[in-house]
Amino acid sequence: MLSSEQQLFLGIDGGGSKCKAVIVDANMQCLGEGIAGAANPFHCVEHAQNSIVEAAGLALADAGMDSQRIGDLIAGVGLAGVNIPKYFSLMNDWQHPFKAMHLATDLHIACLGAHDGEQGAIMICGTGSVGYVSSADESLIVGGHGFPQGDICSGAWLGLQAVQRVLLASDALGEQTLLSEKIFQALDCQQATDLVSCLSGQGATYYARLAVHVFDAADAGDLVAQQILAQASNYFSAMFHKLMARNPTRISLIGGLQVRLKDWLAIDIFNQFSKPRQPPEIGAILFARQQAQQN
Amino acid sequence: MLSSEQQLFLGIDGGGSKCKAVIVDANMQCLGEGIAGAANPFHCVEHAQNSIVEAAGLALADAGMDSQRIGDLIAGVGLAGVNIPKYFSLMNDWQHPFKAMHLATDLHIACLGAHDGEQGAIMICGTGSVGYVSSADESLIVGGHGFPQGDICSGAWLGLQAVQRVLLASDALGEQTLLSEKIFQALDCQQATDLVSCLSGQGATYYARLAVHVFDAADAGDLVAQQILAQASNYFSAMFHKLMARNPTRISLIGGLQVRLKDWLAIDIFNQFSKPRQPPEIGAILFARQQAQQN
Repeated sequence: MLSSEQQLFLGIDGGGSKCKAVIVDANMQCLGEGIAGAANPFHCVEHAQNSIVEAAGLALADAGMDSQRIGDLIAGVGLAGVNIPKYFSLMNDWQHPFKAMHLATDLHIACLGAHDGEQGAIMICGTGSVGYVSSADESLIVGGHGFPQGDICSGAWLGLQAVQRVLLASDALGEQTLLSEKIFQALDCQQATDLVSCLSGQGATYYARLAVHVFDAADAGDLVAQQILAQASNYFSAMFHKLMARNPTRISLIGGLQVRLKDWLAIDIFNQFSKPRQPPEIGAILFARQQAQQN
Repeated sequence: MLSSEQQLFLGIDGGGSKCKAVIVDANMQCLGEGIAGAANPFHCVEHAQNSIVEAAGLALADAGMDSQRIGDLIAGVGLAGVNIPKYFSLMNDWQHPFKAMHLATDLHIACLGAHDGEQGAIMICGTGSVGYVSSADESLIVGGHGFPQGDICSGAWLGLQAVQRVLLASDALGEQTLLSEKIFQALDCQQATDLVSCLSGQGATYYARLAVHVFDAADAGDLVAQQILAQASNYFSAMFHKLMARNPTRISLIGGLQVRLKDWLAIDIFNQFSKPRQPPEIGAILFARQQAQQN
């Protein structure tokens, strides 16, 4: 048995594109990190479990520890998809290899991380988009819902809007736009049929890679790109106000697109965002420690 | 050898969901019909070829003919996806089992069918949407481009719009709508997370099945559904005017949603549609006979 001073903690942040793992000691000192493939049980439960074990193994190796020590770790695991009760149960019933596992949504651990273990709110804008506010009694998810049906203002949504406008312009049924040149060039396309070939069967990640062109074209004065970002910003404002109605102490904006998006938000909203204090995988550890104390 | 009076013709209409075959004699009398699975080479060339052969075999059996007689057939083959040069070449280079094969786009054979072998224009509104106008020297495709990036006003597009509005309403970030009740009921969902589970990984065909609820809700006075149909109708009008700028002699509206859509089109547009004279698979035979005469 490890004494409480010797206890090791594993933090997992698993989503649709990757699974991050971090191992810390009882003083929250980082000992090792690892990254494995997608870990969204909504897409595949077994795959998610394998990615979590793989990422944990890589973090152990990075810490110079034997792979057998996986059984010493108290794991905080934050995953996309487990807001759906069925997938929470499937993951929570897992015969995991850890000493203990505390499961939460990716949103909850991101929020705990951003506010260093305190309650608060987050807005995420990366490949997907979603808002979340936690409080002692109840938490609230706003938006999300995935691609192409939801995730308004996300990278995937921005990319899809851009492509739709490019295709409308190619038929001369919509305004001409700088997005055409940028996206045709980025995907090495000569015409609309090439673009359609590229897009066949692609998902959120592919469309999200095109989002940067919306920001670039808008910065260059393109009206179509500016219209797309105005629509995104309107939605984001509505989501912001819905979260703030719960009176969170702090709110943070996180995700790969937050830097570019900030320029398009109303200044009164922009000014209310506080810098996130810790990354989601550390939030997962804070969650595990809170749960372990309560039990 | 068959004399020209004995010559048999095969018409193929192949798309993303099914492949229809019809066999006619030299007097265009229907001898047999068959339906097989998807035949869109853009999705899988080998699958498309197999579906064509299977549908032809079923049509031969329906005509009470031996399967060996496939080699006697002059085939007119209209396929989705062959507007893209790469897929036209792949299909045209096929070592097919027919006496001869004449390949065209699904749009061209549908247009020839609708106007009984004459030039003209068509607008299609089913799972997908697209406009097409043929003339002696050049043809023009307007719209299309697939789902979710194009096919505005199609069943898939209407279904996606509906779901987006239902999810916005579920977050109280959009107007409440009768679509929520209708779509939750149709998919046996209790809440937004159930709906998201249903939608995961679904394509155009799934979304298109939801389009009927947009028409039903709009007919029942739902403003959100009416907004969606107004947007669809605007796009359809723009597409109509672009096709009519080529001065086609006739224009027909075809596809599974045309009956419901007609109520939402401007009356001056509605009145200009002529009833299609023949189905696409007969258009494929008319194409083959035109090509055989020219050669």
